[in-house]
Amino acid sequence: MTTDQPLLLRNLRLPDGRRTDIFVRDGRIAEIEDGLSPPSGAELVDGDGRLVLSGLVDGHTHIDKTLFGLPWTPHPAGPDRESRIETEKRLRGDFSMSVEERAEALLRHMIACGTTALRTHVDIDPEIGLANLRAVLALRDRYREHVDMQIVAFPQSGIVRAPGTAELLNAAMRDGADLVGGIDPIAFEDDLDGHLDMVFSIAERHGRGIDLHIHDAGPTGIQELTAVAERTKAAGMQGKVTASHAFALGACDAATFDRVADAMATAGMSLATHGGGASPLPPVKRLREVGVPVFAGNDNIRDTWSPYGDGDMLERAMLTAWRSGFRTDEDLEIALDLATHAGATALGLEGYGLERGCRADFFLVDAVCPAQAVADRPVRSLVVKDGRIVAQDGDFTAS
Amino acid sequence: MTTDQPLLLRNLRLPDGRRTDIFVRDGRIAEIEDGLSPPSGAELVDGDGRLVLSGLVDGHTHIDKTLFGLPWTPHPAGPDRESRIETEKRLRGDFSMSVEERAEALLRHMIACGTTALRTHVDIDPEIGLANLRAVLALRDRYREHVDMQIVAFPQSGIVRAPGTAELLNAAMRDGADLVGGIDPIAFEDDLDGHLDMVFSIAERHGRGIDLHIHDAGPTGIQELTAVAERTKAAGMQGKVTASHAFALGACDAATFDRVADAMATAGMSLATHGGGASPLPPVKRLREVGVPVFAGNDNIRDTWSPYGDGDMLERAMLTAWRSGFRTDEDLEIALDLATHAGATALGLEGYGLERGCRADFFLVDAVCPAQAVADRPVRSLVVKDGRIVAQDGDFTAS
Repeated sequence: MTTDQPLLLRNLRLPDGRRTDIFVRDGRIAEIEDGLSPPSGAELVDGDGRLVLSGLVDGHTHIDKTLFGLPWTPHPAGPDRESRIETEKRLRGDFSMSVEERAEALLRHMIACGTTALRTHVDIDPEIGLANLRAVLALRDRYREHVDMQIVAFPQSGIVRAPGTAELLNAAMRDGADLVGGIDPIAFEDDLDGHLDMVFSIAERHGRGIDLHIHDAGPTGIQELTAVAERTKAAGMQGKVTASHAFALGACDAATFDRVADAMATAGMSLATHGGGASPLPPVKRLREVGVPVFAGNDNIRDTWSPYGDGDMLERAMLTAWRSGFRTDEDLEIALDLATHAGATALGLEGYGLERGCRADFFLVDAVCPAQAVADRPVRSLVVKDGRIVAQDGDFTAS
Repeated sequence: MTTDQPLLLRNLRLPDGRRTDIFVRDGRIAEIEDGLSPPSGAELVDGDGRLVLSGLVDGHTHIDKTLFGLPWTPHPAGPDRESRIETEKRLRGDFSMSVEERAEALLRHMIACGTTALRTHVDIDPEIGLANLRAVLALRDRYREHVDMQIVAFPQSGIVRAPGTAELLNAAMRDGADLVGGIDPIAFEDDLDGHLDMVFSIAERHGRGIDLHIHDAGPTGIQELTAVAERTKAAGMQGKVTASHAFALGACDAATFDRVADAMATAGMSLATHGGGASPLPPVKRLREVGVPVFAGNDNIRDTWSPYGDGDMLERAMLTAWRSGFRTDEDLEIALDLATHAGATALGLEGYGLERGCRADFFLVDAVCPAQAVADRPVRSLVVKDGRIVAQDGDFTAS
């Protein structure tokens, strides 16, 4: 990246309302203050007073599942998890675009929406083995200059229920996956300890983190979250474990919430949410207050699980805010934080932020403040990743 | 309208997937079938295979409250209804655009989003009297060729609590309001019978319908809904009364739900929803199944009550669908129905629909089916109201 032309963006608005210029060199924010003089040889961009925000972080998605790029496909599954898993497996191979082609179409759109980093769960089961992982690894390599990608080796069909998956997860970690995934150890796997034994042992063997889908509602979900928190502490994996969804925390009594949230905070666990939809949304502000980091992700985007979504994390921030009853600017800023700084922290991104020395990952929108950006979700005028312009006016433009 | 140039739209896609042309004359759909020959003198429009859908119906909004057209205004109120009401009253007159100017800016945007009919609640209280009503009546007259508008005389500050309001509501009905409004008779007015006495007596005096805001949760909301259903039957007002929001029906036990829903169905009451947000969303499909018509509205749009919204009823359909857990095409079509046909029925719109002889109120989008239109919310390529093109490519274009 050191050969790139330096970039001077002038006439920008910071999240706090101050005016600024940003000078970008070698992929980093070299200067960020008002009234910078154009260094010779720098490309000049007039921000026209637009708001600059740190790159969006999609902390939970499934790019290998998407049908993005295909014509509209009516939702093919029944109303429960089992049917969705079986339907997805049944339809694999029925589509006219490969996993890699569809994921690439989505990835370019996500980048055009200002996403500069993401964590994607990639299906691994005895039937497809590591095929989806290879597709996503190829994309990660091809788009390494355009987006940071973390890969979760995700046993969508279970580990206990699907013999051979544990070995595949181990292979996935060797081949480049960053985290070990998991799914509803009680209601889906019917073996809380067995499932967690495998997830934690694979993670420990490879020295990597964990991100588990915990959809289960009620006491089952509470028991799962509690067990994961205990395991995390016992394994000394504080700060390396995420529970995704955790709907059970959105509909439990206050004493239970306090107990589980405290256990998660003590274990250094974080929580990823897509905003809840029809499921109970865990209380974002209370979780943050008690020390459980919350971050956001788009989850399923136009796939056999869900007809919704277009990969825009500003829309996800809006949905999460609307679902949380956020109205003030301060609350809308929390929603944006879930999709930016909180996500960057959870993913452990180095050099994230709008400060001198940080990686130059940011985007411009026509808004006066972060709260308006969340409410309006304006088109991304410009997206910069590692100091390069990768999208303009909503279109992916990098070569 | 008989002097307008006839319009032939060719190469359209019907909701059921069939290809069609539409010939529009005298504000009506004169022909709707494939392969129509261009009548002499008709303006020709090539639909390019786009989907045609019946005009969107915003069944519950507050255009007199909006801050649309103004720069971003941080949410100024506290976290409860009392604070929102008091804050709104405190800030009246502080804005650089009048109620009429702001409502007009929003109205033009709504029309550009494909809304061809709406029901707006207009604040009436002893402080502003009929000022907001006059502004909205003026707009209704000025935009009568572009959108159908029903006005609810809405006692935002109460009737029992705000002496003089009953007389103002009567005056509003004389001056052109279409329905009598109301608000949380127990928790806000602290006088269930007193509030309903006034609302029903004013409606009966003017031979008009009723649309009450019932926000109250739990047993209070249930008691209010039950009382409204009883009054409706007693007054012989079946088919003329709407409960807006009815959050209590989204979080009650099954027996209570069945009892209240049955009472509402028997009373011919309908229910307007904005999709719930952070509040419990009444179960849309179950209500429809037991005979309670449900329709949708944007409710507050960028005002002192809410920072959200841009007036797009396709987005509202998506939000309601997402919040309801709808995934199949059939369910997404229900969400669209809430924003089209169900709304038209609740508002009693004459000649609504995509059939020969219906009023020519429709719009075109780049989608293959209604479900995709809800999930994608594509820009409205063309909006036709009473046979005239009123918006193109997301912009209001009527003179």
